[in-house]
Amino acid sequence: MILFQCDYNEGAHPKVMEKLMETNMEQTVGYGEDGHCANAAALIRRACGNEKLAVHFLVGGTQTNMTVIAAGLRPHQGVVCAQTGHINCHETGAVESTGHKVLALPHTDGKINAAQVAALCKEHRNDASFEHTVQPKMVYISNPTEYGTLYTRKELEELSAVCRSYGLYLFLDGARLGYGLAAADNELDLPLIASCCDVFYIGGTKVGALFGEALVISNEELNRDFRYLIKQKGGMLAKGRLLGVQFEALFTDGLYLEISRHADRLADKLREAFVRAGFPMLVESRTNQIFPVMPDAVLKELSRDYGFTWQERVDETHSAVRFCTSWATKEENVDRLIADLTRLAQAV
Amino acid sequence: MILFQCDYNEGAHPKVMEKLMETNMEQTVGYGEDGHCANAAALIRRACGNEKLAVHFLVGGTQTNMTVIAAGLRPHQGVVCAQTGHINCHETGAVESTGHKVLALPHTDGKINAAQVAALCKEHRNDASFEHTVQPKMVYISNPTEYGTLYTRKELEELSAVCRSYGLYLFLDGARLGYGLAAADNELDLPLIASCCDVFYIGGTKVGALFGEALVISNEELNRDFRYLIKQKGGMLAKGRLLGVQFEALFTDGLYLEISRHADRLADKLREAFVRAGFPMLVESRTNQIFPVMPDAVLKELSRDYGFTWQERVDETHSAVRFCTSWATKEENVDRLIADLTRLAQAV
Amino acid sequence: MILFQCDYNEGAHPKVMEKLMETNMEQTVGYGEDGHCANAAALIRRACGNEKLAVHFLVGGTQTNMTVIAAGLRPHQGVVCAQTGHINCHETGAVESTGHKVLALPHTDGKINAAQVAALCKEHRNDASFEHTVQPKMVYISNPTEYGTLYTRKELEELSAVCRSYGLYLFLDGARLGYGLAAADNELDLPLIASCCDVFYIGGTKVGALFGEALVISNEELNRDFRYLIKQKGGMLAKGRLLGVQFEALFTDGLYLEISRHADRLADKLREAFVRAGFPMLVESRTNQIFPVMPDAVLKELSRDYGFTWQERVDETHSAVRFCTSWATKEENVDRLIADLTRLAQAV
Amino acid sequence: MILFQCDYNEGAHPKVMEKLMETNMEQTVGYGEDGHCANAAALIRRACGNEKLAVHFLVGGTQTNMTVIAAGLRPHQGVVCAQTGHINCHETGAVESTGHKVLALPHTDGKINAAQVAALCKEHRNDASFEHTVQPKMVYISNPTEYGTLYTRKELEELSAVCRSYGLYLFLDGARLGYGLAAADNELDLPLIASCCDVFYIGGTKVGALFGEALVISNEELNRDFRYLIKQKGGMLAKGRLLGVQFEALFTDGLYLEISRHADRLADKLREAFVRAGFPMLVESRTNQIFPVMPDAVLKELSRDYGFTWQERVDETHSAVRFCTSWATKEENVDRLIADLTRLAQAV
Repeated sequence: MILFQCDYNEGAHPKVMEKLMETNMEQTVGYGEDGHCANAAALIRRACGNEKLAVHFLVGGTQTNMTVIAAGLRPHQGVVCAQTGHINCHETGAVESTGHKVLALPHTDGKINAAQVAALCKEHRNDASFEHTVQPKMVYISNPTEYGTLYTRKELEELSAVCRSYGLYLFLDGARLGYGLAAADNELDLPLIASCCDVFYIGGTKVGALFGEALVISNEELNRDFRYLIKQKGGMLAKGRLLGVQFEALFTDGLYLEISRHADRLADKLREAFVRAGFPMLVESRTNQIFPVMPDAVLKELSRDYGFTWQERVDETHSAVRFCTSWATKEENVDRLIADLTRLAQAV
Repeated sequence: MILFQCDYNEGAHPKVMEKLMETNMEQTVGYGEDGHCANAAALIRRACGNEKLAVHFLVGGTQTNMTVIAAGLRPHQGVVCAQTGHINCHETGAVESTGHKVLALPHTDGKINAAQVAALCKEHRNDASFEHTVQPKMVYISNPTEYGTLYTRKELEELSAVCRSYGLYLFLDGARLGYGLAAADNELDLPLIASCCDVFYIGGTKVGALFGEALVISNEELNRDFRYLIKQKGGMLAKGRLLGVQFEALFTDGLYLEISRHADRLADKLREAFVRAGFPMLVESRTNQIFPVMPDAVLKELSRDYGFTWQERVDETHSAVRFCTSWATKEENVDRLIADLTRLAQAV
Repeated sequence: MILFQCDYNEGAHPKVMEKLMETNMEQTVGYGEDGHCANAAALIRRACGNEKLAVHFLVGGTQTNMTVIAAGLRPHQGVVCAQTGHINCHETGAVESTGHKVLALPHTDGKINAAQVAALCKEHRNDASFEHTVQPKMVYISNPTEYGTLYTRKELEELSAVCRSYGLYLFLDGARLGYGLAAADNELDLPLIASCCDVFYIGGTKVGALFGEALVISNEELNRDFRYLIKQKGGMLAKGRLLGVQFEALFTDGLYLEISRHADRLADKLREAFVRAGFPMLVESRTNQIFPVMPDAVLKELSRDYGFTWQERVDETHSAVRFCTSWATKEENVDRLIADLTRLAQAV
Repeated sequence: MILFQCDYNEGAHPKVMEKLMETNMEQTVGYGEDGHCANAAALIRRACGNEKLAVHFLVGGTQTNMTVIAAGLRPHQGVVCAQTGHINCHETGAVESTGHKVLALPHTDGKINAAQVAALCKEHRNDASFEHTVQPKMVYISNPTEYGTLYTRKELEELSAVCRSYGLYLFLDGARLGYGLAAADNELDLPLIASCCDVFYIGGTKVGALFGEALVISNEELNRDFRYLIKQKGGMLAKGRLLGVQFEALFTDGLYLEISRHADRLADKLREAFVRAGFPMLVESRTNQIFPVMPDAVLKELSRDYGFTWQERVDETHSAVRFCTSWATKEENVDRLIADLTRLAQAV
């Protein structure tokens, strides 16, 4: 059985493990106030081209999302996102559990745009009973999105401008940021993201670490007392240095992008094979998630040897599914999958 | 200026005021544990044909909604409702502020149906990552709905059956229940509602009281420790007897339905006049809310002498608006409005 | 049976009822945006000697407390109060239900002082693991306190100074404020309270109204978007004008203080009678709450004809209890009680 | 500089690291549904002598505490603990952030007893205004406590009995459970804890793991839908197998107790040296935390070479401080510390 169902089927990249082993018996203080965290934060600030950024390390994505949102909103305020946004769909109501409504907007391939946000804000302001409705205060986007798609430079800049004009925070969930930055059609880089967003994170869990997300806050207001929030929401790791050590490894010698490129290249290879075999993509993208639309019968066959996740029903006999590659994916496994799907396609 | 914008423009029905005056200097214990509350509860239980129902009195609708929902759900559970549901749109995220997601479904004239609820529950159960999504545990409906429409007997019974089959509570918001029960096309009565729903309320604020909602709980599980919840959510009135006294008045000699019929009759009269004058209804209904679609120019004229609320834009030159009648509406004001709108229609 | 157990055993003062009757059929807009609320707010601002104060009307005390606290605190912040504070003891965890810890300090006759607050703030700042503890951000006091005692001018000014010095809000719960301002030993007035506190309220429920508290906010930061919070926490009364009308009555011709004086005078009379009869006070105070320490046998006798509340056990055969007077207390009932307790004392 | 300030200054025990390396490139499903988690859970169930126990793995202690408490309480319910309890003091209000009051009781060396819990429950039930107060529903204890002390078998059994009699859950925080079980004066074992408590956890973070706590739930009611809660509160690790793998290592060949014994033995050695040198203990205990009372001048000297934490001021010239040993403490470092403190003591 070869698993393609997510990008966290394995442990960590060997260089990350090596660094964890090396530093294992070092004595450090806890809670992220050690030298490794300081060094990792410095590496990330440098990569973002801004020495003033605040960097915090948290254990996982849901935790990071709810901590940022709880830190930024007052009780009557809500967070705007795509209906497909992870915070709206797959976090068991974590945002609501901190008291805030998720204001979900229709999406286009997992994305929302500046015009939608502006319209929502205008509608709120013009509503005679505006005080009876939730006030939009933050926009949450993910890049890559839950469909593997990417924001263009223009889209991100426009979202940023509209957020600033209406006084909203812009928050980018980068759980898979590496796979976005390394994609063939990527237009963004860390300095741009840091300047457009008030806060974003660089995902480690899905991109080479055992676990961990590096949260970058450019808006000082949002950073105020932030460590209290991390502690309260359960995200302050006692041995915080584990996060620092891992991001030191990932941000040394370009490892983060290098391993992301590996995943994207294999995804491209696999994507082409699906299309060539006659299985169209549900959504066009160039990152590490692949969404082929396939006959249910073929899927049943494939599922004997390969792990993947069901995405959505397309018609009575076809479904869209998701295959993921990652830093850990072996080319031989991709090749084996290509051979099998090609064979199955011919048999249809 | 004559106000039709809501059904709470005036104080209370004279018989309610009279009873408040009569009992004003009586000494009673606080927090709803007095004789008037006990008596009002008995009258309501009798009207519902079930001596076992628990009855609580709360001050207002938002408070009642959030208290019921917080009482019934565990942290990972959500409440299902129409996208137009009051709890989803006009309560500033009160439900989310208690930690719960509102699971909004597409509506038909303000209503949702049993098939939608069943589909949602099935989808949740079949989702491989169900633990990553909010678990549906309660269905919230309003009757009359926010569009003035009513559930039929069959619709309510089907919703009740599907809720019981999937282990969900059914909660009916009856902020305007009197206007529903008194409507020409109504099929429901209190005993039916009490047997189909786990919890519902009989609105006083909009139907003759100064304020107050009578909450009826038929599901004992939901009633457990309920008064703690009322206190915690800020809804336990110190002089609780004010609520008892008002509902005693409303449930004596059929006053509640009598005054509701008055409002519905005037709404029907007004509705016919709008249609006759060439202004179609956005939604068909027979309760006290009227939603004519009118040219913006006519609305501008009307707004000089009449209060009403904007509902939604229909096309570039037409909007739907809302006029409400109530127990307090004077027929002479309705006649004056009819004369004016007829005149304006002819001038178009 | 004559009830002395609280100051909300009756309805409203006749002048309040009269004004409610008079205005009953007026048409106004809802939610406190009517002329009566505007007028009542103006009367209160005038009484406070500050035209810039924000005034909001809410239905009850618990609701007001939790709304103010939720509006002022970020998630990691807590509210400091006496262990006997109403928010700590008698609101079923309403403050915690909005996510905030109550930081309770030892009290002296229901009061806390500036030195305690300063010590708490210093301790928090000096704590090496301060981010692991709740940050104090607001001080809550009640005046009169739950023991009927009053803050002196000096005590209030010192609390205000220490709050400003450490960046904390000062919030005064004035559920019984009238009985404080009218007391023989009172040193405060509304302009002083408004200048010392960031926010406070003038209680109506216990001082002549059917219900209602007038919240006065002097700190603009705290007032930002405040009406959203009122709505979300369930405190926005549909017929908001009922609150305006009542406070108009109470703040016309000095009614609020006049009726408070009545209660305090009868309390003084009763207090003297208790002491004369040999029943000492648990706490010294001059407001409308009286806390005699009495033999359990005498209390049993008294409880046949009089309502009062048990406060605390003093020794094996004595308890402290509470008797309250109010605007509605009849002198003949006080006299009857005095006669009875004198008689019972002689029989001991 | 040698650090004794906590029991999480190093990474993980070499056998844990080895197992993480070995399994690093295995492919498994996520979120704790893999074979390693299943195996670790089986090992723990066996150690507890009960095949029916539910076992969940979470990342850290604060997260575990707030998840258990939020899972078990309805909104009006609170959790009882010692004033020194970790949830009351050092979690930035995490419990309150989920809506619940912490009902703190006076402690004796970090412990509370059955009589205190019974008294609190009785007082709540007998309170005439019980609905205005928070209902106690869970008791939280830590073993070892924050002072390193242990519950005796009798104390635990009595607490369990009183909780069952009043319908409260008993929750034992075992962040340092190993150091308790291995202590010279320990009377408890896992089967006893599992039968007395409704829920408890076996700490990994402080006892040999990189991170992770194994939560054991014996009360099925509390376990219902528990994984939803883990996800919502941010504690569901994507690569859940990391937790399984670590607890597999810790529960193989008695490693967990073996490494705990090491720490306790060195603590005893250090404790004796402190006492011999004339520095008495603040609290008597035999686990890995040591609380000597020392002259401030000596502490200043010691702090040049050793890390420890300040606990509390004892008098004007003496403070109590905390030294911790752990699975990772080297005997040579303990010996060096003993030599230095002996020397410093002689110089006083």
